This record gives sequence, C-alpha cells and structure tokens, in this order.
Amino acid sequence: MTSKWRREFENERSRLNEVVLSSGNLGIKRFFALDEQAYHAGVLPANVKELMGLTASIVLHCDDCISYHLIKCKEAGISKEEFYEAFNIALVVGGSIVIPHIRLAAERLEILFEKG
Amino acid sequence: MTSKWRREFENERSRLNEVVLSSGNLGIKRFFALDEQAYHAGVLPANVKELMGLTASIVLHCDDCISYHLIKCKEAGISKEEFYEAFNIALVVGGSIVIPHIRLAAERLEILFEKG
Amino acid sequence: MTSKWRREFENERSRLNEVVLSSGNLGIKRFFALDEQAYHAGVLPANVKELMGLTASIVLHCDDCISYHLIKCKEAGISKEEFYEAFNIALVVGGSIVIPHIRLAAERLEILFEKG
Amino acid sequence: MTSKWRREFENERSRLNEVVLSSGNLGIKRFFALDEQAYHAGVLPANVKELMGLTASIVLHCDDCISYHLIKCKEAGISKEEFYEAFNIALVVGGSIVIPHIRLAAERLEILFEKG
Amino acid sequence: MTSKWRREFENERSRLNEVVLSSGNLGIKRFFALDEQAYHAGVLPANVKELMGLTASIVLHCDDCISYHLIKCKEAGISKEEFYEAFNIALVVGGSIVIPHIRLAAERLEILFEKG
Amino acid sequence: MTSKWRREFENERSRLNEVVLSSGNLGIKRFFALDEQAYHAGVLPANVKELMGLTASIVLHCDDCISYHLIKCKEAGISKEEFYEAFNIALVVGGSIVIPHIRLAAERLEILFEKG
Repeated sequence: MTSKWRREFENERSRLNEVVLSSGNLGIKRFFALDEQAYHAGVLPANVKELMGLTASIVLHCDDCISYHLIKCKEAGISKEEFYEAFNIALVVGGSIVIPHIRLAAERLEILFEKG
Repeated sequence: MTSKWRREFENERSRLNEVVLSSGNLGIKRFFALDEQAYHAGVLPANVKELMGLTASIVLHCDDCISYHLIKCKEAGISKEEFYEAFNIALVVGGSIVIPHIRLAAERLEILFEKG
Repeated sequence: MTSKWRREFENERSRLNEVVLSSGNLGIKRFFALDEQAYHAGVLPANVKELMGLTASIVLHCDDCISYHLIKCKEAGISKEEFYEAFNIALVVGGSIVIPHIRLAAERLEILFEKG
Repeated sequence: MTSKWRREFENERSRLNEVVLSSGNLGIKRFFALDEQAYHAGVLPANVKELMGLTASIVLHCDDCISYHLIKCKEAGISKEEFYEAFNIALVVGGSIVIPHIRLAAERLEILFEKG
Repeated sequence: MTSKWRREFENERSRLNEVVLSSGNLGIKRFFALDEQAYHAGVLPANVKELMGLTASIVLHCDDCISYHLIKCKEAGISKEEFYEAFNIALVVGGSIVIPHIRLAAERLEILFEKG
Repeated sequence: MTSKWRREFENERSRLNEVVLSSGNLGIKRFFALDEQAYHAGVLPANVKELMGLTASIVLHCDDCISYHLIKCKEAGISKEEFYEAFNIALVVGGSIVIPHIRLAAERLEILFEKG
C-alpha cells in the first residue's frame, strides 16, 4: 500500500520520463540507464549508495531528487533515525539554505513511514 | 495562437516585471536592458544565443528561465530534435540533478509544438 | 495585523520545523540555534545582518529563505528603496538567473508593505 | 602602503580586465559599469553594500570576488570583529563547504590589517 | 603548433583521465563516452554544441571545463568576436561571480589565437 | 607514515583553522564543533558518513573538502574500488562539471594508497 503523495509523485515521474524518452535521443536514453545502474549494489551496498544520492540531492536543492531517494532509501531499509543523521550531514555541509528542503523531506518521511 | 500555459506564463512574467521596474531602481532597469540585448543577433545568430541561454538555464536549475528560452528558441525556429540535443548537453554537463528540469521542459515543449 | 500570505508562510514554517525537531537529532537542533543566533545584533546591527541573509538567499535561489528574510528585514525597518538596492546587488552578483526570485520577492514585498 | 599580495592581486585584476574590455564587446563593458555602480552609496551606505557583496561572494565560493570585497570592506572601515560576524553568517547560510574560502579570507584579512 | 599552456593542459588532462579510467569502474568509463558523444555534430552542428558547453562551463564556474571548450570552440572555427558574445551571455546569465572565470578565459583566448 | 602532499595539506588546514578560531567568534567556533560531530558514528557508521561527506563535496566542487574526506574515508577503511563507486555516483548526479574534481581526487587517492 502506498500513500496518495507517493502514487502521484511516481506516476508523474513515469509519465514525464516517457515524454523525454519518446524523443528518441540516444544520449539521454543512455544517461538514464547509467543513472539507474549507479545505485545498484556493487562493492558498496545499495542502501549506502541511496544515502549518498539522498545527501547529494539535498545539498544540490533538488526536491524531486530528494523525494525519489527518500523512497528508495526507505525501500532499502533505512530507519527514521538514520534518515535524520543523513539530513544532519547535508545540513552541516550545505548550510541553512538547505533547511526548506529538509522541512519538505521531513514531511514526506512522515507520510512514507505512516502510509508507505 | 498560443496555449493557456504560455499565455499565463507570459502574463505573470510581464505583470511582475512591472512591479520590479516600478520601484524606480536604475541599476535593475539597466540590467534588464542588458539581459535583453545579450540575445540580439550579432556575429552569432539569435537562435544560437537562445540555445546557449537555454543550456545555461537548465544547468542552473531555473524553471522560469527554461520556459522563457523554450519559447524564444521555438520562435527562432529550433526543431524538436535540436531541442533534445540541447537537453542532452545540459544533462551531461549538469548531471542527473537536472533531470526534473528536463522533464518539465519536455512537457512544455509538447505544448509549444502542439498549441503554440 | 498580517497578510494571509505571511500567516500561511509562518504557520507552515513553524509546523514543519516542529516535525524536523521532533526527530530528536541533536546536531540539527544545535544548527537551528546557531542559525538564529547568527542574525542577533553584535558589532554589526541586526538590520545589516538581515540584509546580508537576504542577499545570500537571493543569489542561492532559495524562495523560502528570501521570504523569511524579507519579513525579518521589514521588521528591522528596511525601507522599500533599501530593499531594491539590495535586490540590485543580488542581481548583479548572481545574474539574470536570479530574476525570477526577485520577481517573487517584489510581489511579496508589496504585500508586506500594504498588509503587513 | 600595501602588501605584496594586494599589489599583485590588484595588478593582475587590472591587467586582465583590460584584456576583456579591449575586445570591444559593448555588453560586457556595460555590465562592468553596472557592477561598479551597484556598490556606490545610495539609500544604503557603501560599507553595508560591500558587506553584502562579501557575503554573496563567500556563499558562491568565489575566492577572487572575496579578495576584492575584503579590500573594499577594509577601505570602507569594516573592523576585524565585523568581518568575522559576516563570515559567520556566510558560514551558517552556506555550510561547511564555504570553510576553505573562509580560511583563505582569514589569512588575507590578517595581511590587510597588518600591511594594508 | 601549440602553446606551452595548451600542451601542459592537454597532457595533464590525458594523464589524469588515464588514472581515473585505470580504476576499471564501468559506469565512469561509460559516462566519459557519453560526455564525448554529446558534442558530436548531430542536427545541431559541432560548433554550436561547443558554444553551449562553453557557456555552461562558465556559469558553473569550472575553469578546466572552460579551457577544454575554448580549445574545442577554436578548433571548430569560432572567431574572437563570437567568443566574446558567448562570454557576454554567460556574464549576464551568471552575474559578476563569473567575471574571474571570464578574465582567465580571455587570457587563454589570447594565447590560443596567437600561438595555438 | 604520510605523504608530502598529505602533511602539507593537513598542516595548512590546521594553521588556517587556528587563524579563524583565534578571532574569538563564538558562532564560527560552534559551527566547527557541529561539523566535526556530524561525522561521528551514530546509528550510521562513520565510514558511511564519510562517504556521504565525500559525495557532497564532489558535487559541490570543493577540492579542499574532497581532500579532507578522502583522507577520512581512507582511515575508515574505504577500499579503492569503493571510492570509485562513490566517484561514479557523484559523477552521475553532478555531471561532467565534476570531472576535474574527480581527476584531482584520483591522483590524491593514488598517493594515499601508496604513501599514506
């Protein structure tokens, strides 16, 4: 079962990815593949890679990227306390300018832990 | 004929530009003039300049700037396939963090090519 | 008396700050304290510090941070003409990419000066 | 009397500005003029404007811009304690990623206060 | 014939690319391939793509990337006057914070046009 | 035993941190403490936190921060293959603009693994 927010986020993401990929641009298609593969388990486990993706998304101020990695981290078993230690690192590295993104992430995290 | 999205975007932009310029701040007024002049055809044609403005707007994550240059590029005759080659360069330079902006740009591009 | 926009902005900010702080993460709590203290009057007066926070928020493209410092600057007695001189500096330093943020700031400034 | 560091910095800056301006590009020339005028005293005094330029330069990670505004702030009478309050705001807004720039700024500040 | 600066820049770049690629990381290797392919002539000619890469490099403050695209643009036949129109767009989009990068680019451009 | 590069990097960092902290600014001192504490082992182990700090430093283009986290990651037992998986994520998230920073990191990594 998943929350309304998550369903809408994932549907919109899929819908627009198809618009982009239907362009037939080969470079973009290959980039999307590389992007997905980068987070597959390797010598580093998938949950660590997702935490790195989450941290990078926060310090780069990308709410959509944050939402995506929140969901993936949650699926990889990251606990709420672990999420907040990640937020703290992103906050110290990126400064108060990332606080609005952490506020939004915190709200979405509540939804993910309550309703999936 | 123009789409509802484009009309609203352009009206809102004009309305708020007037709020800013009605402040009477001379530096801001001159900056706005420089900004417009930078894209006039010179030794480089206007469509190349608009593509450069579009690429810069994507790698700097500015959705409003992207919308503006999408419209200007379209008016300057840029084809859909050319737009996607520009998106690909912005994606490679700027990384996955620009994907949400390319998704939005792709959607607006569809509207521009269908309804103006 | 305060405007509807300001009430909603401040309520939402407070509500989400509580979500973040209820996590019990000590590092984040301490960061929030440091953030607030940085703007207290010291050898530099509070209004100058708020103008610095506003400028930094504009060049870093953070609308929420801009809104917060607009309100604090207004409370510290910054006049409309002073705000626009600050916007001009942010515009020259940060370039046309900050214009959408200045447009939004200009609109919110009108509300603040009319309705509080 | 000025320090060796400052003389070299200012000479190199002047020399390269002339290379840029000798291109004859009118837009760039006008931008340079706008940039200088933005810091002239207006309703905000020049020292406050320089502090805003310094803060923006730190959070945007520009060492050359920081050096330039350190010198201008010093000439405008900013004290060492005031500089550090400005550094603190830039640090809180921009996060630990600005620390290397603050380290460099601190070193140059020592030189400016000792040798000019 | 090429200048000392260009030879050293290109040798160092090649040497370190080999260090990176000798790691055997497949994702990085594929990214490097995508990066190169993005600038191949397609529906957009190679010189326009290089100008887009140059503009993006300037607004993102990357001196090494600027040097690389200066050389590629020069090889693609971009004239000095065209370079400066590109610099002007980057300056207007990215603001005064890009001036140090334009100063460096201007100096390297002189070397490229004089000595290759 | 440590390499010449590492000794010089760490000495310079310590020397300038003392210049900054000798200012007596309490906010900066507290920020430095928060920064250090964020990487202490908590529910997330220290090596994962260091990898997050490294990734954030790369996507934010901070060579000094990268050097610092390379050393800390190495001390926390990160293997060369793990480092390159981290570089790959940073590259995909941050785009080709981070390549110069990955080149520098790769060179320093060689030194760290050979000479400490």
